[in-house]
This record gives sequence, C-alpha cells and structure tokens, in this order.
Amino acid sequence: MPYVNIKITKEGATSAQKAELIKGVTELLSKVLGKNPATTVVVIDEVENDNWGIGGETVTIRRQQGQ
Amino acid sequence: MPYVNIKITKEGATSAQKAELIKGVTELLSKVLGKNPATTVVVIDEVENDNWGIGGETVTIRRQQGQ
Amino acid sequence: MPYVNIKITKEGATSAQKAELIKGVTELLSKVLGKNPATTVVVIDEVENDNWGIGGETVTIRRQQGQ
Amino acid sequence: MPYVNIKITKEGATSAQKAELIKGVTELLSKVLGKNPATTVVVIDEVENDNWGIGGETVTIRRQQGQ
Amino acid sequence: MPYVNIKITKEGATSAQKAELIKGVTELLSKVLGKNPATTVVVIDEVENDNWGIGGETVTIRRQQGQ
Amino acid sequence: MPYVNIKITKEGATSAQKAELIKGVTELLSKVLGKNPATTVVVIDEVENDNWGIGGETVTIRRQQGQ
Repeated sequence: MPYVNIKITKEGATSAQKAELIKGVTELLSKVLGKNPATTVVVIDEVENDNWGIGGETVTIRRQQGQ
Repeated sequence: MPYVNIKITKEGATSAQKAELIKGVTELLSKVLGKNPATTVVVIDEVENDNWGIGGETVTIRRQQGQ
Repeated sequence: MPYVNIKITKEGATSAQKAELIKGVTELLSKVLGKNPATTVVVIDEVENDNWGIGGETVTIRRQQGQ
Repeated sequence: MPYVNIKITKEGATSAQKAELIKGVTELLSKVLGKNPATTVVVIDEVENDNWGIGGETVTIRRQQGQ
Repeated sequence: MPYVNIKITKEGATSAQKAELIKGVTELLSKVLGKNPATTVVVIDEVENDNWGIGGETVTIRRQQGQ
Repeated sequence: MPYVNIKITKEGATSAQKAELIKGVTELLSKVLGKNPATTVVVIDEVENDNWGIGGETVTIRRQQGQ
C-alpha cells in the first residue's frame, strides 16, 4: 500500500531504467517493511532542468558550468 | 482552503472529465467538512504509463499484458 | 490506480468525516474516469494552523482575526 | 537541506523568472532558518490550465470569463 | 540531486528500518541512473490509518476486518 | 493561485519564523510572476530527523556525527 514519488531531472532516463527503479523500490519496501508489492504505487516525475534548483541555481545553469 | 492533488495515468482524460473531477472534489470537501469552495485548490497530474508503477511493473507493461 | 492527496488544516475532522472523504473521492474517480476503486489510494494530510499560509498569513493569525 | 515544491499554472513563466524564484526561495530559507543553500532543492511544476481548479472550476474556464 | 518521497502507514517502522529504506533507495538511484548519493534527498511520511484510504475505505476499517 | 510546499526537518522552527517564510514566499511569487497573494497557498511540513535522508543517511545519524 505504500506510495513512492521519485523526482529526477529530465535528462534521458530510458523506459528500461524507469522500470528498474519501479521494480527496485517496490522490492525494497517488501524486503524492509513487508509491504505488499501488489498495492505499492510508484510515480516518477521527470523535471525540466530550468525547473529544478539546487544551491540557488537552476540545473540549466549548473550544466553550462560543467557541474 | 484545502489543497487536493489527483494523480492519474495519462490515458485520454478529456477537459470535460477533468472539470467534473475538480467540481466534484470541491463539492465533496464543502459538503463533508464545510470547506469554502472559493479557496479550494485542485491540481491534476497526468503521468505517462512508463512513469507509473504498480505491483513492481510499469503501466506500459501491464497494458501490453491486457491488465 | 489513481493517487489522491488531500491537505486540510488540522481543525477537528473526525474519523467518520475522513472515511466519507475517502469513499467520496474514490467513487468520483470511478464514476468520472472509470478508475478501479480497489487500487485507488487516498492520503489525507492534516496540517497545523501555524504551518498553513494563505494571503501571506498563517491560518493561526487569520483565525485570531475571525477569518 | 530543505525541499521546496512550487506549483504554478503554465502561462509563460520565463527561464529567467524561474531562476529568480529558485534564487529567492533559497535565500529566504537561509535568512529565516539558517538553512544551507548548497543542499536546498527547489522544484517548479507548471500545470496546464485544464488541470488546475479553484472555486470548483478549471483555470481554463476562469480565463474565458476574464478572471 | 533526486528527491524521493515515501509514504507508508504509521504502523511501527523502526529507526533502523527507515535508515535502511533511505540507504536502499539512494543506492538504487546511484546504480540505475548514476545519481550522486551526496545530494539525493529522501523524505518518509508516516500516515495515520484513519488518513489512508484504499478501495474506498480507511486502513483503520480494513485492519478491523483482518485485511 | 500558486501552491507552495516547503519541507524542513523538525528542529525548532518557531511560529514567527514559519509566518516569515509564508509571507516571504508569497511576496516573491507576487513580485516575480505577478501572482495574486490572496489565493497563494503555502504549506510547511516539518519532518522528523529519522524520516529525512541525505547522502544515504538519516539526519539523526548526521547530527550525531556533528554534520
């Protein structure tokens, strides 16, 4: 019954990678807390670099600076 | 003053259906808890099938399997 | 499979009222979009008045002013 | 270490405006609570007018009515 | 830089179990997408059974029914 | 009409500090994007140190290590 929301920048995660994240986090919740995988919901949000900030700057700016 | 976030898979909900969800949930909060509709905010997120997981699988895979 | 998050101020909603919200929003998603009630998840967050702001003020201040 | 999520309607915010929001909210958390800007994360979600409701109506409808 | 929010019912997860969830999901994002663990943020919300609904019912009711 | 969610660790933010955050972020959205303060909603979540992870560790552990 858990609900997990994963937010990452939109920088080319593939369908296979997203499927692997969903499988992995569902298994983790089953292993650690005994949660039922059948009702575990995972939602991935991919966010544009302009819309993600860290250290007071957008990721767009940081990528231009090579970070 | 309530805030409601509805997440659904992006599978063709129409503008009219989304307007009906917004109206319905606003009325529900007014009826059950006496919340003021004027300041009730509802945000609907439509999520790609690749980005939604349940039972450890993406909805993309489940739809291919006829689920 | 939808996920709904309802945020309200913590001002005495009863267990019965919260159960009614959960039932109502689950039925709404079934009626409007044909979503399966069995996998519809609803989470209610009750937020302290000090932690909710509208119009640039906390609800604590607004309640003191009779709003 | 704070995490901030800002949701606005998708009505033309520019990259410069979004960068200014990220800078401003990061500085605010540093000034008011002494939070470390280096690990402050800000995510901006821009939501379609059809998917945002207030007063029981979508923003699409409200904009047509001149609100 | 990812942000992960895990919501579970408040039914006795220990500090050690929560630390294991945080470690596990941070490693998963590093392994699958190469994300930097140093800036990966994980927030766990523990939700009262009265405030969590599935299948149109609160978890409180479901637990009474042995589900 | 914007909605802002601020998540911080629960480490003693006062009512006055939370009111200052709410006022500041509401003014920022008005100044940068011309958003109406009257319908700007801000919700602050204070999260236990055991439930917040960064760098794969809980804040509880980091505080013990003097971080």
